[in-house]
Order: sequence, then structure tokens, then C-alpha cells
Amino acid sequence: MSNFKQKFDEYRQLIDKSLRNYLDEPCFDEKIVYEAMAYAFTGGGKRIRPLLTLEFCRLCGGNIADALPFACAIEMIHCYSLVHDDLPCMDDDVLRRGKPSCHIAYGEAYALLAGDGLLTLAFETMLKKYDGSAVLPQNAARAALELAKQAGHCGMIGGQTVDIASEGKDIGLDTLKLMHSLKTGALISAACKIGCIIAGADDKKISSAERYAKNIGLAFQITDDVLDAIGNTEQLGKTVGSDENKNKTTFVSLLGVEKSLEQADKLTQKAKGELEIFGEDSEFLCELADYLAKRDK
Amino acid sequence: MSNFKQKFDEYRQLIDKSLRNYLDEPCFDEKIVYEAMAYAFTGGGKRIRPLLTLEFCRLCGGNIADALPFACAIEMIHCYSLVHDDLPCMDDDVLRRGKPSCHIAYGEAYALLAGDGLLTLAFETMLKKYDGSAVLPQNAARAALELAKQAGHCGMIGGQTVDIASEGKDIGLDTLKLMHSLKTGALISAACKIGCIIAGADDKKISSAERYAKNIGLAFQITDDVLDAIGNTEQLGKTVGSDENKNKTTFVSLLGVEKSLEQADKLTQKAKGELEIFGEDSEFLCELADYLAKRDK
Repeated sequence: MSNFKQKFDEYRQLIDKSLRNYLDEPCFDEKIVYEAMAYAFTGGGKRIRPLLTLEFCRLCGGNIADALPFACAIEMIHCYSLVHDDLPCMDDDVLRRGKPSCHIAYGEAYALLAGDGLLTLAFETMLKKYDGSAVLPQNAARAALELAKQAGHCGMIGGQTVDIASEGKDIGLDTLKLMHSLKTGALISAACKIGCIIAGADDKKISSAERYAKNIGLAFQITDDVLDAIGNTEQLGKTVGSDENKNKTTFVSLLGVEKSLEQADKLTQKAKGELEIFGEDSEFLCELADYLAKRDK
Repeated sequence: MSNFKQKFDEYRQLIDKSLRNYLDEPCFDEKIVYEAMAYAFTGGGKRIRPLLTLEFCRLCGGNIADALPFACAIEMIHCYSLVHDDLPCMDDDVLRRGKPSCHIAYGEAYALLAGDGLLTLAFETMLKKYDGSAVLPQNAARAALELAKQAGHCGMIGGQTVDIASEGKDIGLDTLKLMHSLKTGALISAACKIGCIIAGADDKKISSAERYAKNIGLAFQITDDVLDAIGNTEQLGKTVGSDENKNKTTFVSLLGVEKSLEQADKLTQKAKGELEIFGEDSEFLCELADYLAKRDK
């Protein structure tokens, strides 16, 4: 096993274990939303976002344990957005990560509440960190505020809005890029920046991390579109061709598969260029950029 | 106009104006979720929760301006919960505060996102407060954490879970009280406690505020049930008799109207007793307790 794969798996295991620990037992007998929340974040996600937070924190000389609640908060936000995205009134997807979507497993009402619960838990998890932590309070506050902004109506939720508003319309490359920079890019940006912020890095490094994030975020999405067009359901764990079926504009529908792959490659190179400021130790993030653009699921 | 009514209206106006100010313009052209968010919190709500925060802060010697972002964050959480509660997969209510519910006005997908957006905005609004504020950072962090807990799966969301799980079942008074103590009580508790915390009050005062909250919260809910049973649609701004139509257990269905009113009165007296520690200046909160139990809408 390569060093990259090993480190990747170690991070994933740490994140999976921690996510479960941050979800306290419910304070009363009715456990169904608690179970739906646990279901939503234990399903074999790649944990790319929290992993970025931990690695950027380490790379900037910070302590991974300090970044962990923030990393997990970001993953909770990601998971809640998937639960709400899959609801019938949104994308109406019955499959997620190869398993029934949360609302299929628990019903719509509980899935809605589980999403709300995960979003709230994300902030609870970060705010708990203010007490007796090695992180400077102003850095913790800045990190939590960064996540609130990137997850909110000017960030991720804004991207979902543009997505819905664009359905059935002919949109151009600019709108498509705006949508994805908000819908997936915002949270990936938050993940990278927050890692640096927790470690107390300077603004120059935070800006480089943000540009790295924007480039891998877009490359990630382009690869997603390509996989949706040419992949198979088994590998993806979700219904393939769902974009085309919904008549959605994608990078593939605008540029074709070949040009899309070229774009993803170009963005990946740009992302890797941004790592220079972090020194030679940034090899893992370099390989991660490649992995994300060349993945097959 | 009585002093009480005047002060009540002044608070409401301050809160209405501030809520609008905390919602930044969207950073891109697609404004529909932004508009749905604004719609959800500008509809003539009573603003009881934020008003409690401001008044408890004042009563504990704090500055109302310092408590304002926290007060508004609580109202945002309340408003998001109403938007999600009204959705077809939850209570399926088409009317809220005399106007079409958010999903009737904007469609289900945007209403879902508007709720998510308000929940996120609540934390953004509080977290912004860490910079350049007169509030001690540890008090601001404690206040924000309190709201996250009371709004989460062990608080308000837990109450909604119990509510859904109880539908169509015969539940007893204990479960009904648990449900309401979580569903409405948790956020009212947060509102009262946070006002004290921001002002830097001691734990004794914070505990008294919490007990005041629990008592008025339950009285408020009992009055709600009574109004639903005997009120009229015009006064309430929502469909009357909706509890009975849904075969829901209420205080009225368990105790009858007269005993319910007695209970509400008893709880109100208990609430008023908790105000002693705050001195003579607590007259407004005393009248507020009466107002909530004796309101006709």
C-alpha cells in the first residue's frame, strides 16, 4: 500500500470514529432522529473535507487533535446537505453511497429533522471547543464563522439555489461554474482554510489554501459529471445518468467528455502549484489533488 | 397605552429592524432563497423569545445592544423551525401568521433551503459578535453553545421527533409535557438564559431565569392548545381545530378546557415567583407571563 493510501485510510478511520463520538446519546427514549443522524454520517463517505482540514492544520504546524472537532463539523454540514438534497422536493434520490437515502430508510419527516440536527450539531461541536482548548479563542471563532458563511445562503445553500433555479434552463459555463463554486467549492474552501486558521497560519497561507481548494473543488465536480455520464451505478453507489435524465446542464453537456477531462487536469495542476508555500511536506495534498481528478467513483 | 404594551412594542420594533439588518444581501443574482428567508421572519411574529433575551440581559445589568445578535439568532432558529414544521412531510400547514406558509409562497425546495439558511445564519450572526464586542468571549461562546444545545436533537428537534412519533398514538400527560418542554420550552429556556449569560449574571440568576422559562413555556403551550380548541381562524392566523382534526393529544384533550386554564394559571404564578431574585425591576417579565397565558391569539 502506498504512503498516500495509508495516510488517507488513517485519516478516514480517525474521522469516522470521531464523528460517532461527537453525537451524544439522546436525552430521552425516542431515538429515531438520533439514529437517522448516525445513519447519515456513517455510510462510507470519502471524508475529503475533514481530511483536508486535518492535513492543512498539520502542514501549518498545528495539532491534528485541535482541528478534529472543526473537521467533523464540516463533515456534518456536508452530510446534512446530502440528506436534504436527496429529499423528494429536491433531487428525489433514493440511493446514496450505495444505500437507501436517509428519507427512504427513515421517512421524510425524520430525514428532514436529522438534517437539521446534523447542521445544529456541527455548531455545537465547534462551540464546545472554546472551553479548555489549546486553540486560541479568536482562531476558533474565526474558523466557526468561516464555516457558517461558506455553508450559508451566500455559500453552499446559495449554490443549491442556483442549481434548482437552473433546472430545465439552458445555462452557460459561467453560471455552471458559479453554481459549483458555491455548491461544493464553498465547503471545500472552508475545510482547507479552517485547517490553516486552527494552526494559526498567516493570511498568505490561508489564501493559498483557498485557491488550492477552489481548483480541486471544480476539478472534483467536473470529474463527478464525467463519472455520471460514463460511470456505472455499482461503482458510484448512486443512480448513473441521473443528470442527463433530469436534463441538467453539466460540464460534459457543455464541453464533452474529453475537454472536461482536460479542464480537470488543468485545474489539478493549478491546485498543486498553490502548495509551494507549504514546502516539501505537502506531498500528500499533491497526491490528493491527483486522486480526486482521476478517481473512478 | 400601558407601559407594558409600549415596552413590548419598542422591543418588537427593534427586533424586526435588526433581523432585517443581519440578513446580508446575497452575493449573486439568484435572490429567491434570500427572499424566502426574509419572508419567513418578517410576518408579524410576537418575537417573544428575542424579547426575553433582551429583557433578561437588561435586568442583569447588561447592555441590550450586546444581546441583540443573540436575541435575533434565537428568533431565526424559531422561524426556521416554523418553515420546516409547515412543510408537507411535517405538519403540512398552508397558513402561518395569517399568510401563506413559506413553501406555499416559494415552493417546497426553496422553503427547505430557506429554513437551512436561517439556521445557519443564526450561528453566523452570533459568531460575528466575537470580534470587537463588549461581551466577554467566554460568555459569547457559552451563549452560542447554549443555543446550539437547546435547538438540537436533544432539545427542540428532539421535541419535534417526539411529536411526530406520538401522532395517532394515545400519549399520557408526561409524554405531552416532555414533548412541549423540548419543542417550545428548550428555545424559550435558551432565550432567557442567554440574556443572563451575555450580561455576565451569576449561575443563581441563570437558574431562576431557566425555571421562569420552563413555566411560561408550558403555560404558553397550554394556552395554545386551548386557543386551538376554542379560538377562531381569524384571530390565530392559522387553521383552527387543526390539532383535533389530526387526532393529536393536547392538554385540552387530556384535561379539558377548564383544567387546562387552571394549569396555565398555576404555572404563570410559579414563573412570576422566580423573578424575585431580579428585584422590583422585573415588572415587565411579570406582566409578560400574564400576557402569554391570557392572550387570545
